[in-house]
Amino acid sequence: MISLRKARTIVRKAMEKGTEDGMKPLSVVVLDAGGHVQAFERADGAAPGRFAIAHGKAYGSVMLGMAGTAQMARAEAQAYFMNAANGVFGGQVIPVPGGVLLRGKKGEVIGAVGVTGDTSDNDAIAAMAGIEAAGLTGEI
Amino acid sequence: MISLRKARTIVRKAMEKGTEDGMKPLSVVVLDAGGHVQAFERADGAAPGRFAIAHGKAYGSVMLGMAGTAQMARAEAQAYFMNAANGVFGGQVIPVPGGVLLRGKKGEVIGAVGVTGDTSDNDAIAAMAGIEAAGLTGEI
Amino acid sequence: MISLRKARTIVRKAMEKGTEDGMKPLSVVVLDAGGHVQAFERADGAAPGRFAIAHGKAYGSVMLGMAGTAQMARAEAQAYFMNAANGVFGGQVIPVPGGVLLRGKKGEVIGAVGVTGDTSDNDAIAAMAGIEAAGLTGEI
Amino acid sequence: MISLRKARTIVRKAMEKGTEDGMKPLSVVVLDAGGHVQAFERADGAAPGRFAIAHGKAYGSVMLGMAGTAQMARAEAQAYFMNAANGVFGGQVIPVPGGVLLRGKKGEVIGAVGVTGDTSDNDAIAAMAGIEAAGLTGEI
Repeated sequence: MISLRKARTIVRKAMEKGTEDGMKPLSVVVLDAGGHVQAFERADGAAPGRFAIAHGKAYGSVMLGMAGTAQMARAEAQAYFMNAANGVFGGQVIPVPGGVLLRGKKGEVIGAVGVTGDTSDNDAIAAMAGIEAAGLTGEI
Repeated sequence: MISLRKARTIVRKAMEKGTEDGMKPLSVVVLDAGGHVQAFERADGAAPGRFAIAHGKAYGSVMLGMAGTAQMARAEAQAYFMNAANGVFGGQVIPVPGGVLLRGKKGEVIGAVGVTGDTSDNDAIAAMAGIEAAGLTGEI
Repeated sequence: MISLRKARTIVRKAMEKGTEDGMKPLSVVVLDAGGHVQAFERADGAAPGRFAIAHGKAYGSVMLGMAGTAQMARAEAQAYFMNAANGVFGGQVIPVPGGVLLRGKKGEVIGAVGVTGDTSDNDAIAAMAGIEAAGLTGEI
Repeated sequence: MISLRKARTIVRKAMEKGTEDGMKPLSVVVLDAGGHVQAFERADGAAPGRFAIAHGKAYGSVMLGMAGTAQMARAEAQAYFMNAANGVFGGQVIPVPGGVLLRGKKGEVIGAVGVTGDTSDNDAIAAMAGIEAAGLTGEI
Protein backbone atom coordinates (compact mmCIF):
# COMPACT_ATOMS: atom_id res chain seq x y z
CA MET A 1 0.00 0.00 0.00
CA ILE A 2 1.29 3.44 -0.87
CA SER A 3 0.09 6.18 1.46
CA LEU A 4 -1.16 9.41 -0.05
CA ARG A 5 1.69 11.11 1.79
CA LYS A 6 4.26 9.03 -0.07
CA ALA A 7 2.40 9.42 -3.36
CA ARG A 8 2.49 13.20 -2.96
CA THR A 9 6.22 13.10 -2.33
CA ILE A 10 6.77 11.03 -5.47
CA VAL A 11 4.73 13.42 -7.61
CA ARG A 12 6.35 16.57 -6.24
CA LYS A 13 9.90 15.36 -6.33
CA ALA A 14 9.57 13.90 -9.81
CA MET A 15 8.26 17.23 -11.07
CA GLU A 16 11.00 19.15 -9.26
CA LYS A 17 13.61 16.89 -10.86
CA GLY A 18 12.15 17.75 -14.25
CA THR A 19 12.35 21.47 -13.55
CA GLU A 20 15.91 21.22 -12.17
CA ASP A 21 17.15 19.29 -15.20
CA GLY A 22 15.39 21.56 -17.72
CA MET A 23 12.99 18.89 -18.94
CA LYS A 24 9.74 19.78 -20.71
CA PRO A 25 6.65 20.10 -18.46
CA LEU A 26 6.02 16.70 -16.86
CA SER A 27 2.91 14.82 -15.80
CA VAL A 28 3.20 12.25 -13.03
CA VAL A 29 0.79 9.58 -11.82
CA VAL A 30 1.02 7.14 -8.93
CA LEU A 31 -1.02 3.93 -9.05
CA ASP A 32 -1.56 1.46 -6.22
CA ALA A 33 -1.04 -2.31 -6.31
CA GLY A 34 -4.42 -2.77 -8.03
CA GLY A 35 -3.56 -0.29 -10.80
CA HIS A 36 -5.87 2.39 -9.39
CA VAL A 37 -4.99 6.10 -9.35
CA GLN A 38 -3.73 7.47 -6.05
CA ALA A 39 -2.36 10.87 -7.17
CA PHE A 40 -1.70 12.82 -10.35
CA GLU A 41 -0.41 16.22 -11.40
CA ARG A 42 0.11 17.82 -14.81
CA ALA A 43 2.56 20.72 -15.06
CA ASP A 44 1.44 23.98 -16.64
CA GLY A 45 2.17 23.90 -20.36
CA ALA A 46 1.85 20.13 -20.75
CA ALA A 47 -0.44 18.79 -23.51
CA PRO A 48 -4.01 18.00 -22.39
CA GLY A 49 -3.70 14.28 -23.11
CA ARG A 50 -0.85 13.69 -20.69
CA PHE A 51 -2.95 11.98 -18.02
CA ALA A 52 -3.72 9.15 -20.41
CA ILE A 53 -0.07 8.68 -21.39
CA ALA A 54 1.25 8.77 -17.81
CA HIS A 55 -1.51 6.43 -16.71
CA GLY A 56 -0.83 4.05 -19.58
CA LYS A 57 2.83 3.75 -18.65
CA ALA A 58 2.07 2.99 -15.00
CA TYR A 59 -1.00 0.87 -15.65
CA GLY A 60 0.79 -1.51 -18.00
CA SER A 61 3.59 -1.81 -15.46
CA VAL A 62 1.25 -2.90 -12.69
CA MET A 63 -1.03 -5.09 -14.74
CA LEU A 64 1.77 -6.99 -16.46
CA GLY A 65 4.21 -6.80 -13.53
CA MET A 66 6.79 -5.45 -16.01
CA ALA A 67 8.38 -2.00 -15.90
CA GLY A 68 8.48 0.22 -19.01
CA THR A 69 11.94 -0.85 -20.18
CA ALA A 70 10.98 -4.52 -20.18
CA GLN A 71 7.68 -3.73 -21.87
CA MET A 72 9.47 -1.80 -24.61
CA ALA A 73 11.86 -4.69 -25.20
CA ARG A 74 8.90 -7.03 -25.53
CA ALA A 75 7.11 -4.60 -27.88
CA GLU A 76 10.19 -4.42 -30.08
CA ALA A 77 10.67 -8.18 -30.11
CA GLN A 78 7.04 -9.14 -30.40
CA ALA A 79 4.82 -6.14 -31.28
CA TYR A 80 1.74 -8.32 -31.70
CA PHE A 81 2.01 -9.49 -28.11
CA MET A 82 1.88 -5.96 -26.71
CA ASN A 83 -0.94 -5.12 -29.14
CA ALA A 84 -2.84 -8.13 -27.86
CA ALA A 85 -2.09 -7.28 -24.24
CA ASN A 86 -3.52 -3.85 -24.95
CA GLY A 87 -6.65 -5.51 -26.22
CA VAL A 88 -7.32 -7.33 -22.98
CA PHE A 89 -6.46 -4.25 -20.92
CA GLY A 90 -8.80 -1.96 -22.83
CA GLY A 91 -6.09 -0.19 -24.80
CA GLN A 92 -4.68 1.35 -21.65
CA VAL A 93 -1.05 0.20 -21.89
CA ILE A 94 1.83 2.45 -23.06
CA PRO A 95 4.86 0.14 -23.22
CA VAL A 96 7.84 2.53 -22.93
CA PRO A 97 10.19 3.81 -20.21
CA GLY A 98 8.67 6.23 -17.78
CA GLY A 99 6.52 3.44 -16.41
CA VAL A 100 8.31 2.44 -13.18
CA LEU A 101 7.36 -0.39 -10.86
CA LEU A 102 7.28 0.26 -7.13
CA ARG A 103 8.53 -2.71 -5.12
CA GLY A 104 8.14 -3.42 -1.41
CA LYS A 105 10.70 -4.87 0.96
CA LYS A 106 10.14 -8.44 -0.17
CA GLY A 107 10.22 -7.46 -3.82
CA GLU A 108 6.46 -7.50 -4.21
CA VAL A 109 4.84 -4.93 -6.54
CA ILE A 110 3.13 -2.26 -4.45
CA GLY A 111 2.22 0.07 -7.32
CA ALA A 112 3.74 2.03 -10.18
CA VAL A 113 4.67 5.52 -11.24
CA GLY A 114 4.08 6.91 -14.72
CA VAL A 115 5.89 9.99 -16.00
CA THR A 116 5.52 11.63 -19.41
CA GLY A 117 6.50 14.90 -21.07
CA ASP A 118 10.17 14.64 -21.99
CA THR A 119 12.06 11.76 -23.63
CA SER A 120 11.09 8.36 -22.27
CA ASP A 121 14.52 8.01 -20.66
CA ASN A 122 14.27 11.38 -18.93
CA ASP A 123 10.75 10.55 -17.82
CA ALA A 124 12.15 7.48 -16.06
CA ILE A 125 14.92 9.55 -14.42
CA ALA A 126 12.35 11.96 -13.01
CA ALA A 127 10.21 9.08 -11.76
CA MET A 128 13.19 7.54 -9.95
CA ALA A 129 14.01 10.86 -8.28
CA GLY A 130 10.49 10.96 -6.88
CA ILE A 131 10.56 7.34 -5.79
CA GLU A 132 13.91 7.72 -4.03
CA ALA A 133 12.73 10.87 -2.24
CA ALA A 134 9.83 8.81 -0.87
CA GLY A 135 12.21 6.12 0.38
CA LEU A 136 10.83 3.48 -1.97
CA THR A 137 12.41 1.10 -4.48
CA GLY A 138 11.76 1.56 -8.19
CA GLU A 139 12.40 -0.61 -11.24
CA ILE A 140 12.56 1.27 -14.55
CA MET B 1 -6.83 28.20 -17.48
CA ILE B 2 -6.30 26.78 -14.01
CA SER B 3 -2.66 26.76 -12.93
CA LEU B 4 -1.30 23.65 -11.25
CA ARG B 5 -0.68 25.85 -8.20
CA LYS B 6 -4.37 26.66 -7.92
CA ALA B 7 -5.37 23.07 -8.68
CA ARG B 8 -3.14 21.85 -5.82
CA THR B 9 -4.76 24.33 -3.45
CA ILE B 10 -8.22 23.11 -4.44
CA VAL B 11 -7.29 19.48 -3.88
CA ARG B 12 -5.58 20.04 -0.54
CA LYS B 13 -8.15 22.36 0.92
CA ALA B 14 -11.07 20.17 -0.17
CA MET B 15 -9.44 17.19 1.52
CA GLU B 16 -8.67 19.18 4.65
CA LYS B 17 -12.30 20.28 4.82
CA GLY B 18 -13.34 16.64 4.67
CA THR B 19 -11.02 15.74 7.55
CA GLU B 20 -12.11 18.74 9.66
CA ASP B 21 -15.80 17.93 9.23
CA GLY B 22 -15.35 14.23 9.89
CA MET B 23 -16.29 13.15 6.38
CA LYS B 24 -15.26 9.76 5.00
CA PRO B 25 -11.98 9.67 3.01
CA LEU B 26 -12.37 11.92 -0.03
CA SER B 27 -11.02 11.86 -3.57
CA VAL B 28 -10.70 15.12 -5.45
CA VAL B 29 -10.03 15.85 -9.11
CA VAL B 30 -9.52 19.16 -10.95
CA LEU B 31 -10.22 19.30 -14.69
CA ASP B 32 -9.37 22.13 -17.08
CA ALA B 33 -11.79 23.87 -19.47
CA GLY B 34 -11.44 21.01 -21.96
CA GLY B 35 -12.28 18.34 -19.41
CA HIS B 36 -8.67 17.12 -19.05
CA VAL B 37 -7.17 16.10 -15.70
CA GLN B 38 -4.92 18.67 -14.03
CA ALA B 39 -4.60 17.15 -10.54
CA PHE B 40 -6.04 14.32 -8.45
CA GLU B 41 -5.62 12.82 -5.01
CA ARG B 42 -7.32 9.89 -3.27
CA ALA B 43 -7.24 9.81 0.54
CA ASP B 44 -5.98 6.74 2.35
CA GLY B 45 -8.86 4.37 2.98
CA ALA B 46 -10.93 5.45 -0.03
CA ALA B 47 -12.25 2.74 -2.37
CA PRO B 48 -10.04 2.00 -5.43
CA GLY B 49 -12.62 3.19 -7.96
CA ARG B 50 -12.86 6.73 -6.64
CA PHE B 51 -10.88 8.32 -9.47
CA ALA B 52 -13.57 7.34 -11.96
CA ILE B 53 -16.38 8.69 -9.77
CA ALA B 54 -14.67 12.00 -9.04
CA HIS B 55 -13.73 12.32 -12.71
CA GLY B 56 -17.27 11.52 -13.85
CA LYS B 57 -18.74 14.25 -11.69
CA ALA B 58 -16.33 16.88 -12.96
CA TYR B 59 -16.26 15.66 -16.57
CA GLY B 60 -20.01 15.82 -17.04
CA SER B 61 -20.00 19.30 -15.55
CA VAL B 62 -17.47 20.58 -18.08
CA MET B 63 -18.80 18.76 -21.13
CA LEU B 64 -22.41 19.75 -20.57
CA GLY B 65 -21.67 23.14 -18.99
CA MET B 66 -23.97 22.07 -16.09
CA ALA B 67 -22.92 21.55 -12.46
CA GLY B 68 -23.87 18.40 -10.57
CA THR B 69 -27.03 19.78 -9.00
CA ALA B 70 -28.47 20.78 -12.37
CA GLN B 71 -27.44 17.45 -13.87
CA MET B 72 -29.19 15.58 -11.09
CA ALA B 73 -32.37 17.59 -11.63
CA ARG B 74 -32.25 16.76 -15.33
CA ALA B 75 -31.59 13.08 -14.60
CA GLU B 76 -34.58 12.96 -12.26
CA ALA B 77 -36.87 14.74 -14.73
CA GLN B 78 -35.64 12.98 -17.86
CA ALA B 79 -33.55 9.91 -17.02
CA TYR B 80 -33.25 8.79 -20.63
CA PHE B 81 -31.64 12.10 -21.58
CA MET B 82 -28.80 11.73 -19.07
CA ASN B 83 -28.42 8.06 -20.10
CA ALA B 84 -28.11 9.18 -23.68
CA ALA B 85 -25.70 11.99 -22.81
CA ASN B 86 -23.59 9.39 -21.07
CA GLY B 87 -23.56 7.37 -24.26
CA VAL B 88 -22.07 10.15 -26.33
CA PHE B 89 -19.51 10.92 -23.61
CA GLY B 90 -18.31 7.33 -23.34
CA GLY B 91 -20.12 6.53 -20.12
CA GLN B 92 -18.01 9.05 -18.25
CA VAL B 93 -20.73 11.22 -16.70
CA ILE B 94 -21.83 10.97 -13.02
CA PRO B 95 -24.78 13.38 -12.73
CA VAL B 96 -24.89 14.19 -8.98
CA PRO B 97 -23.65 16.92 -6.63
CA GLY B 98 -19.95 16.94 -6.02
CA GLY B 99 -19.38 18.00 -9.61
CA VAL B 100 -18.72 21.73 -9.33
CA LEU B 101 -18.16 24.12 -12.22
CA LEU B 102 -15.30 26.60 -12.00
CA ARG B 103 -16.21 29.95 -13.51
CA GLY B 104 -13.90 32.79 -14.53
CA LYS B 105 -14.44 36.53 -14.10
CA LYS B 106 -16.77 36.82 -17.08
CA GLY B 107 -18.77 33.76 -16.04
CA GLU B 108 -17.08 31.46 -18.53
CA VAL B 109 -16.39 27.85 -17.53
CA ILE B 110 -12.67 27.43 -16.81
CA GLY B 111 -12.85 23.86 -15.51
CA ALA B 112 -14.51 21.74 -12.87
CA VAL B 113 -13.84 19.99 -9.59
CA GLY B 114 -15.12 16.53 -8.74
CA VAL B 115 -15.28 15.24 -5.16
CA THR B 116 -16.48 11.85 -3.99
CA GLY B 117 -16.38 9.79 -0.81
CA ASP B 118 -19.05 11.12 1.51
CA THR B 119 -22.66 12.11 0.73
CA SER B 120 -23.06 14.01 -2.51
CA ASP B 121 -23.98 17.15 -0.60
CA ASN B 122 -20.93 16.91 1.65
CA ASP B 123 -18.76 16.22 -1.38
CA ALA B 124 -19.97 19.54 -2.84
CA ILE B 125 -19.25 21.35 0.45
CA ALA B 126 -15.69 20.06 0.44
CA ALA B 127 -15.25 21.06 -3.21
CA MET B 128 -16.43 24.59 -2.48
CA ALA B 129 -14.01 24.91 0.44
CA GLY B 130 -11.15 24.07 -1.91
CA ILE B 131 -12.39 26.40 -4.61
CA GLU B 132 -12.79 29.32 -2.23
CA ALA B 133 -9.33 28.75 -0.78
CA ALA B 134 -7.97 29.09 -4.31
CA GLY B 135 -9.81 32.37 -4.83
CA LEU B 136 -12.05 30.96 -7.56
CA THR B 137 -15.82 30.90 -8.12
CA GLY B 138 -17.69 27.60 -7.99
CA GLU B 139 -21.19 26.55 -9.00
CA ILE B 140 -22.47 23.43 -7.28
CA MET C 1 -27.87 14.56 -51.12
CA ILE C 2 -27.34 17.84 -49.28
CA SER C 3 -24.79 20.11 -50.92
CA LEU C 4 -22.21 21.81 -48.72
CA ARG C 5 -23.73 25.09 -49.88
CA LYS C 6 -27.11 24.16 -48.44
CA ALA C 7 -25.53 22.72 -45.29
CA ARG C 8 -23.71 26.02 -44.71
CA THR C 9 -26.97 27.92 -45.08
CA ILE C 10 -28.67 25.67 -42.54
CA VAL C 11 -25.88 26.12 -40.01
CA ARG C 12 -25.64 29.88 -40.42
CA LYS C 13 -29.34 30.60 -40.41
CA ALA C 14 -30.00 28.33 -37.43
CA MET C 15 -27.30 30.15 -35.47
CA GLU C 16 -28.63 33.56 -36.55
CA LYS C 17 -32.11 32.54 -35.39
CA GLY C 18 -30.67 31.67 -32.00
CA THR C 19 -28.95 35.05 -31.72
CA GLU C 20 -32.07 36.95 -32.86
CA ASP C 21 -34.29 35.18 -30.34
CA GLY C 22 -31.85 35.57 -27.47
CA MET C 23 -31.15 31.85 -27.12
CA LYS C 24 -28.00 30.55 -25.41
CA PRO C 25 -25.01 29.87 -27.70
CA LEU C 26 -26.01 27.13 -30.15
CA SER C 27 -24.17 24.31 -31.88
CA VAL C 28 -25.48 23.01 -35.18
CA VAL C 29 -24.62 19.91 -37.19
CA VAL C 30 -25.82 18.73 -40.60
CA LEU C 31 -25.65 15.02 -41.44
CA ASP C 32 -26.18 13.42 -44.83
CA ALA C 33 -28.51 10.51 -45.68
CA GLY C 34 -25.93 8.03 -44.35
CA GLY C 35 -25.62 9.81 -41.00
CA HIS C 36 -22.21 11.27 -41.84
CA VAL C 37 -21.14 14.79 -40.86
CA GLN C 38 -21.35 17.41 -43.60
CA ALA C 39 -20.94 20.62 -41.58
CA PHE C 40 -20.78 21.76 -37.95
CA GLU C 41 -20.30 24.97 -36.01
CA ARG C 42 -20.19 25.67 -32.25
CA ALA C 43 -20.92 29.24 -31.11
CA ASP C 44 -18.46 31.02 -28.83
CA GLY C 45 -19.38 30.34 -25.22
CA ALA C 46 -20.98 26.94 -25.83
CA ALA C 47 -19.83 24.01 -23.66
CA PRO C 48 -17.05 21.87 -25.17
CA GLY C 49 -19.18 18.74 -25.42
CA ARG C 50 -21.79 20.27 -27.70
CA PHE C 51 -20.62 18.50 -30.86
CA ALA C 52 -21.52 15.15 -29.33
CA ILE C 53 -24.98 16.30 -28.25
CA ALA C 54 -25.84 17.95 -31.59
CA HIS C 55 -24.50 14.91 -33.42
CA GLY C 56 -26.48 12.53 -31.23
CA LYS C 57 -29.73 14.31 -31.95
CA ALA C 58 -29.20 14.24 -35.71
CA TYR C 59 -27.61 10.79 -35.84
CA GLY C 60 -30.50 9.10 -34.07
CA SER C 61 -32.91 10.87 -36.40
CA VAL C 62 -31.21 9.52 -39.53
CA MET C 63 -30.46 6.04 -38.26
CA LEU C 64 -33.95 5.41 -36.91
CA GLY C 65 -35.76 7.52 -39.52
CA MET C 66 -37.51 9.27 -36.62
CA ALA C 67 -37.20 12.96 -35.71
CA GLY C 68 -36.40 14.08 -32.14
CA THR C 69 -40.01 14.57 -31.05
CA ALA C 70 -40.98 11.04 -32.05
CA GLN C 71 -37.85 9.64 -30.43
CA MET C 72 -38.65 11.44 -27.18
CA ALA C 73 -42.18 10.05 -27.18
CA ARG C 74 -40.78 6.58 -27.67
CA ALA C 75 -38.19 7.11 -24.91
CA GLU C 76 -40.92 8.21 -22.52
CA ALA C 77 -43.20 5.31 -23.42
CA GLN C 78 -40.53 2.65 -23.66
CA ALA C 79 -37.21 3.82 -22.19
CA TYR C 80 -35.64 0.38 -22.55
CA PHE C 81 -36.19 0.45 -26.31
CA MET C 82 -34.24 3.68 -26.75
CA ASN C 83 -31.55 2.37 -24.39
CA ALA C 84 -31.30 -0.75 -26.51
CA ALA C 85 -31.28 1.28 -29.74
CA ASN C 86 -28.41 3.24 -28.26
CA GLY C 87 -26.59 -0.02 -27.69
CA VAL C 88 -26.67 -1.01 -31.32
CA PHE C 89 -25.75 2.50 -32.46
CA GLY C 90 -22.74 2.77 -30.18
CA GLY C 91 -24.37 5.06 -27.65
CA GLN C 92 -24.60 7.83 -30.21
CA VAL C 93 -28.33 8.61 -30.02
CA ILE C 94 -29.80 11.60 -28.11
CA PRO C 95 -33.60 11.13 -28.34
CA VAL C 96 -34.97 14.66 -27.79
CA PRO C 97 -36.21 17.58 -29.93
CA GLY C 98 -33.52 19.47 -31.76
CA GLY C 99 -32.94 16.44 -33.96
CA VAL C 100 -34.75 17.31 -37.19
CA LEU C 101 -35.16 15.07 -40.23
CA LEU C 102 -34.51 16.54 -43.67
CA ARG C 103 -36.93 15.20 -46.28
CA GLY C 104 -36.68 15.37 -50.07
CA LYS C 105 -39.45 16.01 -52.57
CA LYS C 106 -40.78 12.46 -52.41
CA GLY C 107 -40.66 12.39 -48.65
CA GLU C 108 -37.42 10.40 -48.52
CA VAL C 109 -34.91 11.17 -45.73
CA ILE C 110 -31.96 13.08 -47.17
CA GLY C 111 -30.23 13.85 -43.88
CA ALA C 112 -30.79 15.48 -40.50
CA VAL C 113 -29.95 18.58 -38.53
CA GLY C 114 -29.01 18.57 -34.85
CA VAL C 115 -29.13 21.69 -32.71
CA THR C 116 -28.25 22.01 -29.01
CA GLY C 117 -27.61 24.80 -26.51
CA ASP C 118 -30.98 26.14 -25.45
CA THR C 119 -34.16 24.25 -24.47
CA SER C 120 -34.88 21.28 -26.72
CA ASP C 121 -37.92 23.09 -28.14
CA ASN C 122 -35.94 26.22 -28.96
CA ASP C 123 -33.21 24.09 -30.48
CA ALA C 124 -35.82 22.67 -32.87
CA ILE C 125 -37.09 26.16 -33.74
CA ALA C 126 -33.58 27.27 -34.64
CA ALA C 127 -33.06 24.14 -36.74
CA MET C 128 -36.26 24.78 -38.67
CA ALA C 129 -35.24 28.38 -39.39
CA GLY C 130 -32.03 27.10 -40.96
CA ILE C 131 -33.79 24.39 -42.93
CA GLU C 132 -36.39 26.78 -44.31
CA ALA C 133 -33.71 29.29 -45.30
CA ALA C 134 -32.10 26.51 -47.35
CA GLY C 135 -35.39 25.74 -49.09
CA LEU C 136 -35.66 22.27 -47.58
CA THR C 137 -38.38 20.42 -45.67
CA GLY C 138 -37.84 19.55 -42.02
CA GLU C 139 -39.67 17.27 -39.58
CA ILE C 140 -39.12 18.07 -35.91
CA MET D 1 -9.27 30.26 -27.51
CA ILE D 2 -10.18 30.22 -31.19
CA SER D 3 -13.28 32.25 -32.00
CA LEU D 4 -15.87 30.75 -34.30
CA ARG D 5 -15.13 33.65 -36.66
CA LYS D 6 -11.49 32.60 -36.96
CA ALA D 7 -12.45 28.93 -37.21
CA ARG D 8 -14.77 29.72 -40.12
CA THR D 9 -11.99 31.60 -41.88
CA ILE D 10 -9.65 28.66 -41.47
CA VAL D 11 -12.19 26.21 -42.88
CA ARG D 12 -13.18 28.37 -45.85
CA LYS D 13 -9.70 29.41 -46.86
CA ALA D 14 -8.32 25.89 -46.55
CA MET D 15 -11.10 24.62 -48.81
CA GLU D 16 -10.55 27.47 -51.29
CA LYS D 17 -6.85 26.64 -51.40
CA GLY D 18 -7.75 23.06 -52.28
CA THR D 19 -10.01 24.19 -55.10
CA GLU D 20 -7.45 26.67 -56.46
CA ASP D 21 -4.69 24.10 -56.51
CA GLY D 22 -6.85 21.40 -58.04
CA MET D 23 -6.80 19.14 -55.02
CA LYS D 24 -9.45 16.46 -54.46
CA PRO D 25 -12.49 17.49 -52.35
CA LEU D 26 -11.24 18.41 -48.87
CA SER D 27 -12.69 18.11 -45.38
CA VAL D 28 -11.49 20.51 -42.70
CA VAL D 29 -11.96 20.51 -38.94
CA VAL D 30 -10.91 23.05 -36.30
CA LEU D 31 -10.48 21.88 -32.69
CA ASP D 32 -10.00 24.05 -29.60
CA ALA D 33 -7.22 23.69 -27.02
CA GLY D 34 -9.09 20.84 -25.32
CA GLY D 35 -9.50 18.87 -28.54
CA HIS D 36 -13.20 19.70 -28.95
CA VAL D 37 -14.78 20.45 -32.33
CA GLN D 38 -15.37 24.11 -33.14
CA ALA D 39 -16.15 23.90 -36.87
CA PHE D 40 -16.15 21.36 -39.70
CA GLU D 41 -17.01 21.20 -43.37
CA ARG D 42 -16.85 18.38 -45.91
CA ALA D 43 -16.69 19.31 -49.59
CA ASP D 44 -19.17 17.83 -52.05
CA GLY D 45 -17.78 14.61 -53.46
CA ALA D 46 -15.67 13.72 -50.42
CA ALA D 47 -16.02 10.22 -48.93
CA PRO D 48 -18.50 9.91 -46.03
CA GLY D 49 -15.86 8.99 -43.46
CA ARG D 50 -13.83 12.16 -43.84
CA PHE D 51 -14.95 13.74 -40.58
CA ALA D 52 -13.27 10.96 -38.60
CA ILE D 53 -10.03 11.26 -40.56
CA ALA D 54 -9.83 15.07 -40.31
CA HIS D 55 -10.73 14.84 -36.63
CA GLY D 56 -8.14 12.15 -35.98
CA LYS D 57 -5.35 14.24 -37.48
CA ALA D 58 -6.25 17.30 -35.40
CA TYR D 59 -7.16 15.40 -32.23
CA GLY D 60 -3.87 13.57 -31.99
CA SER D 61 -2.06 16.86 -32.54
CA VAL D 62 -3.79 18.52 -29.60
CA MET D 63 -3.75 15.59 -27.21
CA LEU D 64 -0.09 14.76 -27.74
CA GLY D 65 1.05 18.34 -28.36
CA MET D 66 2.71 17.08 -31.57
CA ALA D 67 1.80 18.08 -35.13
CA GLY D 68 1.20 15.47 -37.84
CA THR D 69 4.74 15.48 -39.22
CA ALA D 70 6.24 14.74 -35.80
CA GLN D 71 3.61 12.09 -35.12
CA MET D 72 4.39 10.39 -38.42
CA ALA D 73 8.13 10.37 -37.59
CA ARG D 74 7.36 8.77 -34.24
CA ALA D 75 5.02 6.23 -35.84
CA GLU D 76 7.72 5.25 -38.32
CA ALA D 77 10.41 4.97 -35.64
CA GLN D 78 8.26 3.31 -32.99
CA ALA D 79 5.00 2.02 -34.43
CA TYR D 80 3.94 0.30 -31.23
CA PHE D 81 4.10 3.61 -29.35
CA MET D 82 1.64 5.33 -31.67
CA ASN D 83 -0.56 2.21 -31.60
CA ALA D 84 -0.53 2.37 -27.82
CA ALA D 85 -1.18 6.12 -27.78
CA ASN D 86 -4.18 5.43 -29.99
CA GLY D 87 -5.42 2.96 -27.43
CA VAL D 88 -5.47 5.47 -24.62
CA PHE D 89 -7.13 8.05 -26.85
CA GLY D 90 -9.92 5.75 -27.96
CA GLY D 91 -8.50 5.00 -31.40
CA GLN D 92 -9.00 8.61 -32.42
CA VAL D 93 -5.44 9.48 -33.54
CA ILE D 94 -4.37 9.65 -37.23
CA PRO D 95 -0.61 10.30 -37.11
CA VAL D 96 0.14 11.86 -40.51
CA PRO D 97 0.57 15.37 -41.99
CA GLY D 98 -2.60 17.36 -42.34
CA GLY D 99 -2.82 17.59 -38.56
CA VAL D 100 -1.56 21.08 -37.84
CA LEU D 101 -1.05 22.63 -34.39
CA LEU D 102 -2.31 26.15 -33.79
CA ARG D 103 0.02 28.12 -31.53
CA GLY D 104 -0.67 31.36 -29.66
CA LYS D 105 1.66 34.33 -29.16
CA LYS D 106 3.62 32.66 -26.36
CA GLY D 107 3.92 29.40 -28.28
CA GLU D 108 1.16 27.67 -26.34
CA VAL D 109 -1.13 25.25 -28.21
CA ILE D 110 -4.52 26.91 -28.76
CA GLY D 111 -6.03 24.18 -30.93
CA ALA D 112 -5.44 22.27 -34.13
CA VAL D 113 -6.64 21.98 -37.71
CA GLY D 114 -7.18 18.68 -39.48
CA VAL D 115 -7.42 18.44 -43.27
CA THR D 116 -7.98 15.33 -45.35
CA GLY D 117 -8.87 14.48 -48.93
CA ASP D 118 -5.72 14.86 -51.01
CA THR D 119 -2.16 13.71 -50.27
CA SER D 120 -1.11 14.27 -46.67
CA ASP D 121 1.37 16.92 -47.79
CA ASN D 122 -1.24 18.79 -49.79
CA ASP D 123 -3.66 18.52 -46.90
CA ALA D 124 -1.10 20.31 -44.73
CA ILE D 125 -0.60 23.00 -47.39
CA ALA D 126 -4.33 23.68 -47.47
CA ALA D 127 -4.47 23.80 -43.66
CA MET D 128 -1.65 26.35 -43.56
CA ALA D 129 -3.42 28.55 -46.12
CA GLY D 130 -6.47 28.66 -43.88
CA ILE D 131 -4.43 29.29 -40.75
CA GLU D 132 -2.49 32.14 -42.34
CA ALA D 133 -5.69 33.73 -43.65
CA ALA D 134 -6.94 33.77 -40.05
CA GLY D 135 -3.75 35.45 -38.86
CA LEU D 136 -2.68 32.51 -36.73
CA THR D 137 0.51 30.46 -36.45
CA GLY D 138 0.54 26.84 -37.57
CA GLU D 139 3.01 23.98 -37.09
CA ILE D 140 2.70 21.18 -39.63
